[in-house]
Amino acid sequence: MKNQKRIRGYGIEIGEMTCGVRNSITDVKGVEVGHITLNENDIKTGVTAILPHQDNLFKEKLIAASYVINGFGKTIGTIQINELGTIETPIILTNTLSVGVGANALVKYMLEDNDDIGKTTGTVNPIVCECNDAYLNDIRGFHVNKEHILCAIANASPEFEEGAVGAGTGMSCYGLKGGIGTASRILKLDDREYTVGILVLSNFGRGKNLIIDGIKAGQKVEEIKKARDNSDDKGSIIMILATDIPMTSRQLKRISKRAGVGLSRTGSYMGHGSGEIVISFSTANRIKHYEKNAICNFKIFNENKIDDVFTAVAEVTEEAVLNSLICADTTIGRDGHVRYSLKNYIGEILK
Amino acid sequence: MKNQKRIRGYGIEIGEMTCGVRNSITDVKGVEVGHITLNENDIKTGVTAILPHQDNLFKEKLIAASYVINGFGKTIGTIQINELGTIETPIILTNTLSVGVGANALVKYMLEDNDDIGKTTGTVNPIVCECNDAYLNDIRGFHVNKEHILCAIANASPEFEEGAVGAGTGMSCYGLKGGIGTASRILKLDDREYTVGILVLSNFGRGKNLIIDGIKAGQKVEEIKKARDNSDDKGSIIMILATDIPMTSRQLKRISKRAGVGLSRTGSYMGHGSGEIVISFSTANRIKHYEKNAICNFKIFNENKIDDVFTAVAEVTEEAVLNSLICADTTIGRDGHVRYSLKNYIGEILK
Amino acid sequence: MKNQKRIRGYGIEIGEMTCGVRNSITDVKGVEVGHITLNENDIKTGVTAILPHQDNLFKEKLIAASYVINGFGKTIGTIQINELGTIETPIILTNTLSVGVGANALVKYMLEDNDDIGKTTGTVNPIVCECNDAYLNDIRGFHVNKEHILCAIANASPEFEEGAVGAGTGMSCYGLKGGIGTASRILKLDDREYTVGILVLSNFGRGKNLIIDGIKAGQKVEEIKKARDNSDDKGSIIMILATDIPMTSRQLKRISKRAGVGLSRTGSYMGHGSGEIVISFSTANRIKHYEKNAICNFKIFNENKIDDVFTAVAEVTEEAVLNSLICADTTIGRDGHVRYSLKNYIGEILK
Amino acid sequence: MKNQKRIRGYGIEIGEMTCGVRNSITDVKGVEVGHITLNENDIKTGVTAILPHQDNLFKEKLIAASYVINGFGKTIGTIQINELGTIETPIILTNTLSVGVGANALVKYMLEDNDDIGKTTGTVNPIVCECNDAYLNDIRGFHVNKEHILCAIANASPEFEEGAVGAGTGMSCYGLKGGIGTASRILKLDDREYTVGILVLSNFGRGKNLIIDGIKAGQKVEEIKKARDNSDDKGSIIMILATDIPMTSRQLKRISKRAGVGLSRTGSYMGHGSGEIVISFSTANRIKHYEKNAICNFKIFNENKIDDVFTAVAEVTEEAVLNSLICADTTIGRDGHVRYSLKNYIGEILK
Repeated sequence: MKNQKRIRGYGIEIGEMTCGVRNSITDVKGVEVGHITLNENDIKTGVTAILPHQDNLFKEKLIAASYVINGFGKTIGTIQINELGTIETPIILTNTLSVGVGANALVKYMLEDNDDIGKTTGTVNPIVCECNDAYLNDIRGFHVNKEHILCAIANASPEFEEGAVGAGTGMSCYGLKGGIGTASRILKLDDREYTVGILVLSNFGRGKNLIIDGIKAGQKVEEIKKARDNSDDKGSIIMILATDIPMTSRQLKRISKRAGVGLSRTGSYMGHGSGEIVISFSTANRIKHYEKNAICNFKIFNENKIDDVFTAVAEVTEEAVLNSLICADTTIGRDGHVRYSLKNYIGEILK
Repeated sequence: MKNQKRIRGYGIEIGEMTCGVRNSITDVKGVEVGHITLNENDIKTGVTAILPHQDNLFKEKLIAASYVINGFGKTIGTIQINELGTIETPIILTNTLSVGVGANALVKYMLEDNDDIGKTTGTVNPIVCECNDAYLNDIRGFHVNKEHILCAIANASPEFEEGAVGAGTGMSCYGLKGGIGTASRILKLDDREYTVGILVLSNFGRGKNLIIDGIKAGQKVEEIKKARDNSDDKGSIIMILATDIPMTSRQLKRISKRAGVGLSRTGSYMGHGSGEIVISFSTANRIKHYEKNAICNFKIFNENKIDDVFTAVAEVTEEAVLNSLICADTTIGRDGHVRYSLKNYIGEILK
Repeated sequence: MKNQKRIRGYGIEIGEMTCGVRNSITDVKGVEVGHITLNENDIKTGVTAILPHQDNLFKEKLIAASYVINGFGKTIGTIQINELGTIETPIILTNTLSVGVGANALVKYMLEDNDDIGKTTGTVNPIVCECNDAYLNDIRGFHVNKEHILCAIANASPEFEEGAVGAGTGMSCYGLKGGIGTASRILKLDDREYTVGILVLSNFGRGKNLIIDGIKAGQKVEEIKKARDNSDDKGSIIMILATDIPMTSRQLKRISKRAGVGLSRTGSYMGHGSGEIVISFSTANRIKHYEKNAICNFKIFNENKIDDVFTAVAEVTEEAVLNSLICADTTIGRDGHVRYSLKNYIGEILK
Repeated sequence: MKNQKRIRGYGIEIGEMTCGVRNSITDVKGVEVGHITLNENDIKTGVTAILPHQDNLFKEKLIAASYVINGFGKTIGTIQINELGTIETPIILTNTLSVGVGANALVKYMLEDNDDIGKTTGTVNPIVCECNDAYLNDIRGFHVNKEHILCAIANASPEFEEGAVGAGTGMSCYGLKGGIGTASRILKLDDREYTVGILVLSNFGRGKNLIIDGIKAGQKVEEIKKARDNSDDKGSIIMILATDIPMTSRQLKRISKRAGVGLSRTGSYMGHGSGEIVISFSTANRIKHYEKNAICNFKIFNENKIDDVFTAVAEVTEEAVLNSLICADTTIGRDGHVRYSLKNYIGEILK
């Protein structure tokens, strides 16, 4: 999107399913994404907001699930997702030490549109996910504030940039510059088209391990650089899955697990120090906050058909990680730390 | 049922909700229970079968959940319940060392009615739960065989006995004779009546800890007996929850957790050596094995109303444990081991 | 402690195990608790901090576990506790909408003493737990700020108040005034004494359901008040368990589950709207952030002896809830909402 | 082993870590594996037994964990592994419908050596894992009996065959003949060598999806065969991980998750119909059934070093699946169903 050359632009086609129009999480109708980028001197950070639908999300919740691949992470909001199987706020991504600021801002944003919260009804469950951008960013400086969160939400749109933008501004992936990536796939069910989309915030992996569609790209990069990267895999990856297939929370958790398939194929070992979290939601059914009926009608997906959704999730995860790499520009951050763009090496890798 | 004097017959009314007609799991329409009792000399064991509905359960599965309160147990079949949220066989209860025999017999029972299993479609997931009746029963003798399992299934009926029958023949509870107990409650939702029922196989608890509706009955029993029971809590309890409320697997898991509330109120600490397992199912929606449609219509319960179901589960669990005790006759088993009936003490306790 | 008349002062002795010297979580050596109370006009809120030991907790982590009884809650930090089985910060309790502020302040507190965090080592996992005090407190006013968090930490001491103080200032429990409560028990293992302690922040339960040591106290309160409370159980309870028994994270999770036993005995049904979270830690082994050895020596508890710890946890939970009630003074809060003290009724209840 | 040409014999080296002497799970000292193969006419099935150590496993248990990647499976014994973190019997692998027979036989095997079980101490938790070999085997014929189980245990040895033997006799993998495979890796920790080994029973995957070290082998096989396989992924894979690193149950569960990385790299999407179960154990610490001390000394692995173990698990899983394929001979089974050996295609694939 936004005229960036993505991994398909280099002839790399992951899997065999059809992409959505934008090949983006925003191919799921109603989903929008906004960024705010903080990029000056030692400040390499930002915020990305995912809006699951365009109405009052607290009053009309969506069915959701979370899944922890590796839990060395500080994402907030998952206890309630696990219990109730719903989300009721936008999803905010930012740097690790700004999760508190993110939660505070998101709660205030929700209160503005809902004067019943904390007064005549209960409270609200903010969802804030994070990766640690400390290698490039002065994370101890706490540069993200409330206005940045609100701004990212306000910027939400079906079209958005990938790479070193928003929460991805300071992220590293496989020893290269990482950040925001997205992808989507289309499925036909009962003669109707449905979409599975993902947005990733990539910040994980050892340089030598990168695999691009089966090619040991990381080893090639090390040969080109004539340098080995022996650092640990201390990063993280946040994966937000969206679909318009009418799934239950249990079904969403099952498909969330398959994000690990895509990750593995890019070379990840799900490192010890990595917070690898999936949050998934379906836009198909809405759960009303003030529902009066005790028994409600829902459309529910026939689980015997789920294999194609599993394949879609694996494909979009793998492709979104590659998009996050190939769209990200070389970045020089805090204390002169540098992460080079995959663009510098892709020609050599694909030879 | 079956003219046994139950705990309500002694004036003990647990909670404040209304009971079903039979005050039994079989108040949930379609549910039936059958026993086979093995009771001679050192053999004090048996089998209890719960049939969730009366049609082909493999072809028309029910939504289900399992929940482990304490996992020192050998119940089989829960991995698939957790993944798929369904059950596709009757539920068999027997002694711990007979679980293999139970699984083998149940699989053969299912194959008789389904010649597609293991040939043109997949296999089948038998559910067999257990408690250890070794204190009264010669469990090393392996006295349960395939025919006993089939017999328990064939005996299934809406009316059944409680106490020292079926799988409960050799069980102990709070130092007294335990076994099979049941109870039910009625809820009104959208002007229709729904039922929550339970069947327990009780085999847990230290004598001194028994509480009957707030009364420290265990301490009274020890005073009467002039003996202290210092044995460990090595038993188990299996709890089968049934309802006709149209719940998802996640909702069923949530209500299953509340069985622990009822258990606690009878005096349990969920002992280390206890296998405390809940399996719950809803009869409201059927999941067809050969469903063709990718998107299906379901009725689903509005979770905002779930508190009454929680209360119902806590009440039926507490009452079913007490029924399992009060209906069980004094039993002399292997090596002269004795478990006395609560009936011997109830008069004194309630004075 | 602090000269408050606690539930034992009224002749109510929960269970049969021996209490610690203070009958408090701070009987576990090294544990300290501090409050800050915000109490003027519509502001009825505050902060409570639990310090697990007195050294640098980030550099010397403790083995820990978390357990969700019911997950309608916004506690943060549990993903990492679950993955790594350790805690590395104090534990902060406050109101629901202040969790973001709490996390932000706690991270800044940790950075002050650790200039490696976010620079030469990874980030830090703040633990902030919450209950919703909106009935008595103007929670939408966001009255808790960073300085309050730091102040609660600075106030930490082995002696602390219970009831309507700190995070408990605006909490309600069983339709009465709730808040902070604590209790402890002593066990003998291999001829040495060990301690199990708890601190609860109580904010749950329907009035009619309160049970005090088997007595249906809630029904008596309603008779005295000549009023029925038909409100939902929308509250929550946070339970912090501490011990000096050298337990693994898995063992700590097992004992955490038994908090539900104590809760149930006070009358709880673990309501739908309740965030019931246990966080437990052992002070016995320290996990060094910069440990060099690949294989380390640990003392580990023999799980065959765990039943006494289960009993201790059930007893302290039940007693701490009662202490939180009986120590709390009647409070008039936002919009004239009132919660009466259990002290007003206890005489009548115990007649 | 046993003079079979394994995947390394074709020049395929998975990963970069060093293999153990046998490149087998039996490189972990004390571990032994035995098969019994049932192969005549429509009977293509069998049993494989893994013995974790050579002493009385009930009296000296090992620390263990289980992890469910996808739970469409009937493995038994995992509830107790999850609760207690130990195993106390050998691990039996067989076909799905023989799990009951396997459990029954294994219990009887354990009772022979332990006359306290079910008499003066508790019962025993048998571990039996399964895959569905119905495509090649007359699974409805129940051809596995008690003696086969005992025979597989008796056959245990450090040297064993891979491919279409034992429980692997009738298994299919990626549309080819699957079965038993193994591999191992060596790590250096504190100047001592440790081993991570795996045994897999492979029975999963769609033909087109097979990947061999990054090469899309499945697509090549379909080109050679001039046939597309559109069948669902209905199989399963059992993965038994062994190590002599002194890990806790939580750590073992963490490494078990990384088996999914290796699986994904062979082309798996963790299909809906697949029971993908990992059981892992460490031979380093023994948990005595009759331990008297309340506090015991253990060596425990420093988790900061776990990344190399993750890599080892991913590598051995990937290699063991490939070994299970390349060692398996073409098999003609029930109703003339055929699964060809990968050996038929490997030359063409690697060109």
